[in-house]
Formats: sequence, C-alpha cells, structure tokens
Amino acid sequence: MHSINKLKIVNDPIYGFITIPNELIFTLVEHPYFQRLRRISQMGLSYLVYPGAHHTRFHHALGAMHLAGRALDVLQFKGVTFSDEERSSLLAAVLLHDIGHGPFSHAVEHSIVHGVSHEHLSLLFMKELNDQLGGKLDMAIAMFTQEYDRPFFHQLISGQLDVDRLDYLKRDSFYTGVSEGAINSERLISMLNIHDNKLVLEEKAIYSVEKFIIARRLMYWQVYLHKTGIVAEQLLIKLLRRARSLLKVGQNLAMSSDMRFFMEREDYQNFDSEVLHRFARLDDSDILWAMKQWVDHPDSVLSRLSAMILNRNLLKISLQEEEFSKAEIDHHLQRVSKELKLPLDEASFFVFSGSISNQAYHMDRDAILLLTKKGDVMDVVQASDQLNLRTLSTPIKKYYLCFPKQIY
Amino acid sequence: MHSINKLKIVNDPIYGFITIPNELIFTLVEHPYFQRLRRISQMGLSYLVYPGAHHTRFHHALGAMHLAGRALDVLQFKGVTFSDEERSSLLAAVLLHDIGHGPFSHAVEHSIVHGVSHEHLSLLFMKELNDQLGGKLDMAIAMFTQEYDRPFFHQLISGQLDVDRLDYLKRDSFYTGVSEGAINSERLISMLNIHDNKLVLEEKAIYSVEKFIIARRLMYWQVYLHKTGIVAEQLLIKLLRRARSLLKVGQNLAMSSDMRFFMEREDYQNFDSEVLHRFARLDDSDILWAMKQWVDHPDSVLSRLSAMILNRNLLKISLQEEEFSKAEIDHHLQRVSKELKLPLDEASFFVFSGSISNQAYHMDRDAILLLTKKGDVMDVVQASDQLNLRTLSTPIKKYYLCFPKQIY
Amino acid sequence: MHSINKLKIVNDPIYGFITIPNELIFTLVEHPYFQRLRRISQMGLSYLVYPGAHHTRFHHALGAMHLAGRALDVLQFKGVTFSDEERSSLLAAVLLHDIGHGPFSHAVEHSIVHGVSHEHLSLLFMKELNDQLGGKLDMAIAMFTQEYDRPFFHQLISGQLDVDRLDYLKRDSFYTGVSEGAINSERLISMLNIHDNKLVLEEKAIYSVEKFIIARRLMYWQVYLHKTGIVAEQLLIKLLRRARSLLKVGQNLAMSSDMRFFMEREDYQNFDSEVLHRFARLDDSDILWAMKQWVDHPDSVLSRLSAMILNRNLLKISLQEEEFSKAEIDHHLQRVSKELKLPLDEASFFVFSGSISNQAYHMDRDAILLLTKKGDVMDVVQASDQLNLRTLSTPIKKYYLCFPKQIY
Amino acid sequence: MHSINKLKIVNDPIYGFITIPNELIFTLVEHPYFQRLRRISQMGLSYLVYPGAHHTRFHHALGAMHLAGRALDVLQFKGVTFSDEERSSLLAAVLLHDIGHGPFSHAVEHSIVHGVSHEHLSLLFMKELNDQLGGKLDMAIAMFTQEYDRPFFHQLISGQLDVDRLDYLKRDSFYTGVSEGAINSERLISMLNIHDNKLVLEEKAIYSVEKFIIARRLMYWQVYLHKTGIVAEQLLIKLLRRARSLLKVGQNLAMSSDMRFFMEREDYQNFDSEVLHRFARLDDSDILWAMKQWVDHPDSVLSRLSAMILNRNLLKISLQEEEFSKAEIDHHLQRVSKELKLPLDEASFFVFSGSISNQAYHMDRDAILLLTKKGDVMDVVQASDQLNLRTLSTPIKKYYLCFPKQIY
Repeated sequence: MHSINKLKIVNDPIYGFITIPNELIFTLVEHPYFQRLRRISQMGLSYLVYPGAHHTRFHHALGAMHLAGRALDVLQFKGVTFSDEERSSLLAAVLLHDIGHGPFSHAVEHSIVHGVSHEHLSLLFMKELNDQLGGKLDMAIAMFTQEYDRPFFHQLISGQLDVDRLDYLKRDSFYTGVSEGAINSERLISMLNIHDNKLVLEEKAIYSVEKFIIARRLMYWQVYLHKTGIVAEQLLIKLLRRARSLLKVGQNLAMSSDMRFFMEREDYQNFDSEVLHRFARLDDSDILWAMKQWVDHPDSVLSRLSAMILNRNLLKISLQEEEFSKAEIDHHLQRVSKELKLPLDEASFFVFSGSISNQAYHMDRDAILLLTKKGDVMDVVQASDQLNLRTLSTPIKKYYLCFPKQIY
Repeated sequence: MHSINKLKIVNDPIYGFITIPNELIFTLVEHPYFQRLRRISQMGLSYLVYPGAHHTRFHHALGAMHLAGRALDVLQFKGVTFSDEERSSLLAAVLLHDIGHGPFSHAVEHSIVHGVSHEHLSLLFMKELNDQLGGKLDMAIAMFTQEYDRPFFHQLISGQLDVDRLDYLKRDSFYTGVSEGAINSERLISMLNIHDNKLVLEEKAIYSVEKFIIARRLMYWQVYLHKTGIVAEQLLIKLLRRARSLLKVGQNLAMSSDMRFFMEREDYQNFDSEVLHRFARLDDSDILWAMKQWVDHPDSVLSRLSAMILNRNLLKISLQEEEFSKAEIDHHLQRVSKELKLPLDEASFFVFSGSISNQAYHMDRDAILLLTKKGDVMDVVQASDQLNLRTLSTPIKKYYLCFPKQIY
Repeated sequence: MHSINKLKIVNDPIYGFITIPNELIFTLVEHPYFQRLRRISQMGLSYLVYPGAHHTRFHHALGAMHLAGRALDVLQFKGVTFSDEERSSLLAAVLLHDIGHGPFSHAVEHSIVHGVSHEHLSLLFMKELNDQLGGKLDMAIAMFTQEYDRPFFHQLISGQLDVDRLDYLKRDSFYTGVSEGAINSERLISMLNIHDNKLVLEEKAIYSVEKFIIARRLMYWQVYLHKTGIVAEQLLIKLLRRARSLLKVGQNLAMSSDMRFFMEREDYQNFDSEVLHRFARLDDSDILWAMKQWVDHPDSVLSRLSAMILNRNLLKISLQEEEFSKAEIDHHLQRVSKELKLPLDEASFFVFSGSISNQAYHMDRDAILLLTKKGDVMDVVQASDQLNLRTLSTPIKKYYLCFPKQIY
Repeated sequence: MHSINKLKIVNDPIYGFITIPNELIFTLVEHPYFQRLRRISQMGLSYLVYPGAHHTRFHHALGAMHLAGRALDVLQFKGVTFSDEERSSLLAAVLLHDIGHGPFSHAVEHSIVHGVSHEHLSLLFMKELNDQLGGKLDMAIAMFTQEYDRPFFHQLISGQLDVDRLDYLKRDSFYTGVSEGAINSERLISMLNIHDNKLVLEEKAIYSVEKFIIARRLMYWQVYLHKTGIVAEQLLIKLLRRARSLLKVGQNLAMSSDMRFFMEREDYQNFDSEVLHRFARLDDSDILWAMKQWVDHPDSVLSRLSAMILNRNLLKISLQEEEFSKAEIDHHLQRVSKELKLPLDEASFFVFSGSISNQAYHMDRDAILLLTKKGDVMDVVQASDQLNLRTLSTPIKKYYLCFPKQIY
C-alpha cells in the first residue's frame, strides 16, 4: 500500500494525469517486463519522418488503460454493472495487450522473431506474469483470449473501436504533429453503451464514427504508410536479414548476446519461460547499437544499410497502383550493380519492390454497432446516410519500388 | 499612419494574433458599418444550445481576412505573383464579404428584410464604402462579383474551399466546444496553389480535403442543424412574422425606430443609401430588446413566443426522413388549440413542420481541384480512391415537426 | 426526472463537457433569473479590446459550478466526507454566486443601481429562489453568507483560491486569447485538501500557487485594467450619469421601462421582490439599445458619448504613478471646451482623471494555506522561498487621465 | 537545390511546421553529426519521471532555429536590418549550439568526457563542420563565441532570454505534460527589439517576463530538479564511475569500442578531429546497451546499479535546506553495508549526499533589458514594480541524501 502512493499519478500530455488505480496494476507497471516498454518506440523508425515521434509502448499502454477506465465509468453511469475484479482485469489486459512487442515494434516482428506475432508474445507474457502473481490475471487472460463470457470486455481490448486505437491514433497524431489525424477519444467513449453484452455506440455518434474512420484513414496514408517511413522500415528488415545470413556463414558480427540468441535461431515456436526472458531483454538499443558497430563491417551491404538508416540517407521510393514491371526493377538493379560495384543479388538489398495496403473499415469482422433511440442495433454501414462505408471497406493496395538516387 | 499603430494587432484565441496590414484595411475596420458587426452574433441563437457560441461577425471577418493573407503568402512562396493592390483588394473583399448580415445573422434574413440576401447587402455596403473612399474598393468589388480577370481571387472569397469556410468552421468549432468539427485551416492553406488562374490543391491534400468535407458535414448535423437550434430559429422567425402582422392591423409594439422602419415595410428592393444606413443601425440588441418588451404584450402569441426564446423554454421537435402527415400535425394543432385556448391559426405558431437539408460537397459548382505532381488537374471526386464524394454530393433532406410538450 | 435528460450535458470549450448533476441544479439553470445571465457579458466592454471576449455570466457560472464538483471529487478521494445535501448546496451556491450582476457586469454596478453591490443582489436572488423552491437553498445560503459551520465550503465559493477565480481567470484568458494568463485550474484543484475544516493546498503546490498569483497579476494589468478597457468603462459610466441628469430635468430619453425605473430612482436600499424582478429584466441589450437611440439625441454630450462607445471611437488615455496635476487636467479641459464648443462642466465628460489599483495577493484576509508533509499548516507567504509575496501584497495604484485626441 | 525540397518542411507538434530555410541549413541538418542528435534524449533520464519526455536534442535544435527565424522576422518588421549572411549565420549557430551534447545530455558530461563542457564540444563541432564547408560557418562561429560586433546575435544564441530557453522550456513543458511550465515564446519574441545593438524587450513585456521567470523557476523545481530525476542521474554517474574503475583494474566490461575509448581515457584536453569523430558516434544507445549487459556482471555494485536504472527501481531521496550530518549519512551507510553485505566504500554507491541549486534570474550577467516608450533602457529588476526579482536572483541551494529503502 505504501509503495502505491509513490507512482499513483503519472503526467500525461494528452489526458493530463493517468492514475494507477490499484495494487495489481501498480505491480504490473513496476515489473521489469513492463518497464522494458520504456525502451521500445511506439512508432518504430517513424521519427525519421516525424522528429517528435519518440513516444514509447510504455506510454501508450498506460494511455490505453486510462481510456479503458474512462469507458467503464461511462458504462457504469449508464447502468451497466461489473465487479471490481472485472474492472481490474480489463485494465490489466489493456495494459498488457502490447507487452509482446519487440524492438522498433512492427519492423522487427518480421525479422528477429520471424513468424511469431506480438499478440502471441503478449499472451505468453501475460501467462508468465500470471504464474508469478498466483493467478491474479486469470480473468484478464480470459478477456484477452475471448474466453470471457461478457464479450464487450474483449471488444474494448481489441475491436474496431477499442481503447488501443482510441489511444494510439490520438497519441501518434499528437507526437507527430499531424494534428489532422486527431480523434476525439473522450467524445467517442462518452457515447459507448452495452447492448446484449456487446459494445454499441449511441445513434448520434454516427458522425463522430465517420470522422474517426476518416481520421484513421488519413493517419494510415500520411503517417503509418508514409513513403519515407516505408523505406526506413524495409531497410531495417533487409539489414537484419543480411546480418542473419552473414552469421549463418560464420562471420563475426558485434551484437548483444540476447540479440545473437534470436538472430542465430530459425525456429521460434518453442517459447518457454527462458526464451521469453531473453526476449524481454531486447529493446531498441540492441538494434541501434548493432547498426552503429556494423557501419565499419567489411561486408559492404551490411555497412551501407546501417549507415543509411543511422544517417537518414535513405533510398528513393515510387508508389503506384499497379505492380512494377520486372523490366523497371531490372533496370534499376543493373544500374545499381554497376554504380556500386555489387553483384546483382547484393544490389537487390538496395532495389526492391513490394506492396502496402490499407483498409479504413472492416465490414465483415466485429462491426461498429449503433443503438437507436428505439433500442434497435444497426451496423454503422447501414446508418451512415451518405458516407459510403461499404466503399471504405475495400482494401486499397499500393505498390512501391525502392532504389538509390542516380549518381551523376 | 499614426493611428494604424494603435490597432495594428488584434488578439485572437485561434490564430494568436491578427495583424491589420495597411491603412485601407484599418479604415474599413474602424468604420461604424464594420464596428456594427461586433454586435451581431455569428451563429444566431445557437448559444441557446452551445453557451460558448457568442462570437461575432466582427471576429469572423477579421479571421477570414487573416487567412486570406496567409493564403497569399503561401501562393507567393510558390511563385504566384500579384500586385500590392491585388493583395489589399482581396483582403478588403474578404473583410467585407459578410458585412450585409443583419441581426442574428441568418434568422433575420428571412423576416426583417424579407427576400434580400445578405450577399446582396454586402455588395451594397461595399459600394457605399467605395463611394466614401473615392474608389479604393473598385478592385475588391470586382473580385467579389467575379468580374476580376484572375478568378482565383474570387474563389478565395467564395468557393468550396474559401477562407470564409476555413475560418468559420474552425471558429464555430472552437467556440461551441464541438472539437470534432475542427479543421486544420493552416494545413489546407499550405497546400494551395494556382493553376490556369484557378485555385488548386496539391495532390497530397486529398486526405485533408476528405477530412474537411467530413468535418463540415459533422458541423452541419451537430451544430448548424442542431434540433434545438432549429426550434429557436423558427420561433424567432414566427415571432417576427407575428409582430409584423400585429403592426399591420395597427397595434402598438415597442421597438426601435430603425427596426420599425423595416418591420412596417413590405418591399426591400429599393435599398438606397439612406435605407442602407438605417439597416446599418440594426443589430442583435434590437431583437433582444423588443422581445423583452413584448413579453408583457396583450397578444398571447407574441408574448408567449418572446418568453419562450428569452427563457429558453422551447418547443419539442421530431426529425424524420419523410414528410410529417397532415394527420399528425393536425393532432398536435388540435391538442394545443385546446390546451392553450387558442384558435387553430394561432396554434400554428406553436405547431409547425418544415424541412432542412445539407449537402457536404457540391459536385457541379466550383469543384475542389487537385494538381498532380505531373501537372494534371483533377476533381477531388475522381481523386478520392475510396471515399465516395459522389454520394456525399447528394443533398440530404430531413423533415421536422415542432410542438409544445404535452401538459399532463 | 424526464426533463433532466434534456440538458444533462453542456458543451464547454474549456472543460469539454459540463454535467448538470441533479434536479435542483437543473431547476436553477432553467429559471429565467439564471437564463438572463446568457445576455450579460462576463467582461463588460472588454470585447472592444479583445474581440473574442463575448462570453457570458451564464457560462462562467456553469464553469465555476463544474470546478466546485471537481474540487469535491478530489477532497472525497482524499478522505474528506460530506453529505449529498452539502454537495448539492455548494454547487447551487457557486452557480448563483454572481447572479446579481447587472448589464455589462461591473460597469453598471456603479451607475444603474448605485451603491448596491452585486454580491448583495446575488443574495437577494438566492433568497427569492429559496422562497420559490420551498427552502431547498437554505444550506446554500448559509454557505454563501459564511454561516455554515464548515468554513471550507465558503472558501470554495469566495476566497483567494475559490472556484470563481479558478474559472474566470482561465475562461477570460481563453476567450481573450491572452494565453499567458492561463492558469492550470485542474492541477491546483488536484492539490486541494482540508485541514481543521479549512481549505489548504499540499505543500508541493507552492510553485503552482506562485504561478497562479503571477498569472492573475498579469491578467489584471493586461486585461482587466487594460487602458482601452478603462476608457470604455469610464465612458459608459459617464454616459449613464449624463442620462440620469437629463432625466432629472425632465428630458425625454428612449429606454426600456425597466431601465427607466432604475435610472429615475435615487435610493436602492429597498429591494423587495418586485424591484428584484424588474432588475432581473435588465441585461446588456438595454444599454446597447439605449445608446443606439441616444446617438440622435439633441444633447451633444449624450449623443457624442453614445457614438464613441458604439463606434469604438474612444478617448486617449495616459497612465502614471503620480496623480495628474490640476494644471494638466485644466489644460485639456480648456482645449476641449474650445474645440468642441462646450461649457467646461460638459467638457469634463470627455476629460477626466481617476485611479485604478491592483493587489495580486491579500496577506491579511483569508490567506492561502499550505499543508506540509509533516502536517503543519503555513501561509504561502512564509513558504515561498524566494518569491516575495509580501511585496506582491502591496496594492499598486495608478492614475489615469482621459482626453480626446488633439484636433489639428 | 533539388534535395532541399525533400526536407523543406518538418512537422512539429509545437510550432506546426518548421521550415528548413536554405541550402546551408539543409546541409547541416543532413550531416551525420547532426543526425546523431536524433539518438540523444533532450532530458536525459527524466522520462523515468515523465514518461512523455523522450524528445531529442535534434528536435530542440530545430525548434530553437525556428524561433531564431521568427525573432529576426519581428526585428526586421521593427526596422532592424541585417544581411542574408547574418540571418543564415544566426540560424546555423543556433542549430549547432547544442551539438556537443553526449549521451543522456548532462548526465554524461560529468562522467564520459570528464571536464569538457558541451559548449566547448559544440564549438569543436562547428569548427570541424566549418572546415568541411570551406569557411561557410565563419560568421556563425564568431556570433557563437561573442566575437561578432553586433552583440545581439550572441544574445539570441545564449542569454537570459535566448531562443534556446524559449524553445526548451516550452518543449519540455509540452512533452512532460507539466503544462504549468509552458511559456508563451511567440509572445515574448513579438516584443523583442534592438537598442544600441543589444537585445531589449518592449516595456509592456514586463508582466510576460515575470511570468517567464516564474515558469522557469517552476520547471526547475518540478522537472529538472525533480527528486526522482536527481536519483536517476546520480545513479548513472555512479555507475559510469564504477565501470571506469573496474576497467582500470583490468576487468572485462562489454561496451562499444567508442565508449571504451572514452572510458579508458583520463585526459580529454586533446580533442582532435579523430577524437571528435569518435565522440560523434556515441549516443544514448551506448549507455543503455552497456547497462543491459552489465546487469549480469559479477561485480555486484555494477550489476545492481544497472538493474536499478533499467527497471526503475531507484533509491529513496530526502531533500532539505541544511547539509546532511555525517552521522545521518553514516547511519545509512552502516545499515546498507550490513543489509547488502558490501564493504563501506561500495555501500557508498548506494548512500550518498550532494546538493542542487537553482537561480531563477541572474542579476549580474546579461540582464534582461526593457525599452520604455520614451526610449530609455532599464533592467527588468528595476521595472518590476512588485515582483522582487532581486530576491529571485539569490541562488537557492538544497541538499539531498539518497539511500535504499529499509529492508524489513
């Protein structure tokens, strides 16, 4: 009890204050597994585009938990009842929903622990913490895994209008300075309700939901899928892939022993407690540190990629709606191979294409529901008189081609 | 020159400071015709719904002029050239674009000077001021009336992305506290350009334009067409209509002589200098003052309507997509006639129906154009990959029915 | 009960939402006496300096009530207990603390109801409302008049750190755009506590209190005692004085009957229910309306003063630390008498001097107290290690001289 | 020219946009020495107290440069003239004023490059860049070193009201969420002027200056000298000291070769180009990475200190106005020595005292000057009628004692 008072309140530029509501949450926040999130950037390498974007997973997790508390307050005010344990479990589940993220969040999901999603790792962390806490997270885990019998708790953790999104869209917009992406989280939350144990919004929320979907769409194209951001992320993935193949052929590469452990491994299915503990020691500094050492490595692909990211000397990128032709890619490959004096397979680290896609709203899964004054429930897609949410549900796919600027 | 320094800078909660850029603008701002706008509420009776909404036409006009200056700065930075006179004329035209508004802005357009639009009155004011200033507003007037040969100046004054909208949407959202309606005016302006003497936006503005249109749509439904706001506005129109008919039959009604001048008149086509000068003496206080006197008037319709508005004791309102049936209206009329002991024709001041409509984007007139990197121009409707702006261009019509609460 | 839902929540640009917490408060808000405050400007004529400053007593009263609720939440969280009636009474008292203000707030206190303070009128209104509500405001009145036996309730209503100041400093700073005057009301409230039934602040609040006092000082000099604002206010006082003396000699002046009632009266001590009801019919529009009529009045002092205020064509003002010499005043009087062709006693309506004063902190009355971690209480004056609050307690007096610009 | 367009505009949550004004500034920003600042936290370990405080030296440097540009705009508007080279040089000097900061800003100044100030290193960097750029920074360096003959340029770079402070106080307040510390940089800048080649403020700025000084004072006590922040910083200094002594006795410690280079060195006076280049490879990740490896080191002092910082499991701290007695310190030393089974000299890594001090305003050096309307110049200390700035100029010293919580 004593210790609680010390961290009871956390300053937050967005909500003013975030209160740590009870001993369980305090214990989780204090845990080294959670403190680690202070060293993991929420937006990966996006700070190369938006220099303000250095906020962390730690801060986002606290923010989402704060919104979860606000959502429960609103629901309670409207007559929804729940136990103290349910409240605490929801907050715990929200707090831990992203604890499985590795260095630079998404970028590394595809390279360091290839094939293991951060959601899966979050669950492993929760189970480990649950063991340490003697089962106090049983209900939180059930909510997280959709096994709890009041589905709205899961929807608040993970859904099309969950507190995760409500926090990160607002937070990312705030820290990047892309103020157009700002959503009014508090307003949306104030219109939440429960119907048949499912999350719904009051009918009048329709215009706010539309604006939320459009703001999210804007954040995707302008921030999360920003051209320079794509280049940086792809370069990091290529770099780690290169490092991995150099390790395989026995080359010496400076890196932390924990990072080496994962970089030398192929199979990540067997994530026991010990492997998890090693994973929990990784953060952004492992990657940054390694890149800084690799700048001097004799392998020119490795050193060049490292320097490009560190010094923000990135590739050019073209974006279009059709796939790039093999001819166009080959043209760049040939050119780069000649200019940089690299064999074609190594030139492909600097010339590559791929695709990104974005879907503003998912019609099929977990629709956002409105509750009319008469007590009927309808999908926002039906409710929106004009904004064609059906169209907004079509995924948009774009193709990119990255290549170095021509040397004159 | 001396006097300029006195009012050079005006504090504005939204833009920080607004600078009065030159002597001409200073003279216009100082003119009693413009100072009058300090006493005309920008949003009519909307403060009965949003208690913060007491900002005035004066402040909005300054804000729009400020944005016009910013727009010219941006265009100049991009290589568009214009003379000092063009700059000054644009600012003057923007400053005066709404000077023709009467008391409570739109409400009274339909009752005090029946059939004369505020745009027309603005032009009359401009011409009058131009006479007083020896022709210094010639070019401003040409820009306002679309006769100036560089059409983009007119588009900045009046178009689907003019500085009028860019200011009032932001300002109304700010003062009402409906923060979801906020638009990023500065961002949109930073993406303006000129192509073939027409206003265009850089291609990347597409998501910002989408958000602008959605925010505008939200402001319409949530603020400008708010149910309680409709009731208040309609009651005011009914009240003035009643007053007018009482005057016609020779009843005595307290009001200012200027107001009486217009209330006793039927035809407003002949707006000479003198009539205009009288009009310029009207402001919100004429209406408020009259209502306060009428509360004690023997005519129960007049006194009741006055008290309803003053004490915010308004009618109920239903909104629906189909017209209300005659039966339903009659039912209320009969009830109210009985409850209030009024003949049916007088009951109709308290039971009435009508319609409102809203069109988020107009496809046909003055489309918002995007300039692609390749130099092509296209309508945002084409450019928006998903958001069906075509659908958003369909006008939405809703029907309302107002009636007093049942007395039990 | 039904009706509550209609106005349950009010949008506020500052706090987001203000909730009407119960039936009693709802009834008070709905009362015509309270609705009247919608037509009384919070900052008098300050909008002639800061065009955004059109917010009303209505909005401020709601805001202060909102903060009172927040303060009680904080105190409750810290273990202070109080009954539902105490909560409701505090909110009611705060809501009504300024209900006695007349047109243009302070300006008219000195001219329309000469010698009757707005606090006294507020109490009369509360008693009248209490009669209408069958004694439901007994406790609120006791709190307001310092007769309630838990003095901290009164301190929240009226003291050096009351919710009145916490709201108006923030609100006035917001609407004027003088963002430097902004105080962090929520932060200060979060550090409130009760000790020996008196309001105290946690020790760590010391720097926030310092900043609060400095911000208040800044708002005084920059806003409340702004030179142009002083001129405008004094001109209004002079104007009403002139009107009063013209009435006395039997001249005809257009004005509302309610305004005439007070303008023809000398003695305001006998404020019975009926007089109060008449007073409750006055608002800003009475003054504005009268000025507009008086612009054409044959008395050149009356007409000139009216036009000066309406068209913001104000006097010049000098400010200094010593009294202005009789010689200097006379010089201007003579000049103006000649230029305007007015006898000296009438010239004195355009040439006059006076003084203003400002005291950032009052040491003697109702000190702001800090509660140390060890449980001791001390005056902020002692606690502030460096900021000499003792010096800030000295009232600062400045003298002004107003006069018309020289005509060349 | 081509490349400029790419990074022309940077998003900034505080100022909206920051423009890179010319080719020279662009080249500097692109330089790896400057890009390195992206990896150096502006506020050291303060994010352990304020989780939002992850902004970097990179962002602050851009912000300060932006304000320098605004200051020049204001001065130019007021008739001060300067050449394009002067403008560009000022911006360059401001941009680079902090480039000499090492990992975690101040913390490491005392341990990694013991005895070499960051200002000195900034100058070395400027000279190095000047060599690379063929003398283009000559004037910027002269301004930085006070050798340029218009002293106000230096005052904008470094003084009691320089753009450095104007940016960092605002930025740190923004990112920590300590909104009370916010200053109105734009307002202060708008009141700048030059008199006798020295920076002055218009007289009316006095209240804003007062508020600036009080806000700065608040930020010091609440943020920069926050108790938990002091503990974290001191622990980091102790940790590096321990590492250094272990290296000296030949122990093996994982760290980057660049860090080792500095950790094994005693004398830093000879900072040639090569040493500087090595220094430029250090950033926060070197420290974080090393700590993570050291957690497993056999030396229990090293491992324990590392874990304490990483997991935010810090020491307790007492603060008082008198020095702590030897007896009190010894008491804790003895206790900790016993509890942790450490010899006394090693226990002193966990029990230590020291002092901090804070001076809100410096009267002696480079006073803030006000320019009266009559053209006189006076020190703000004289001008402030009440706020005793003389008292605020006394340095305040406090003593701290850090120790581990008692184990029960």
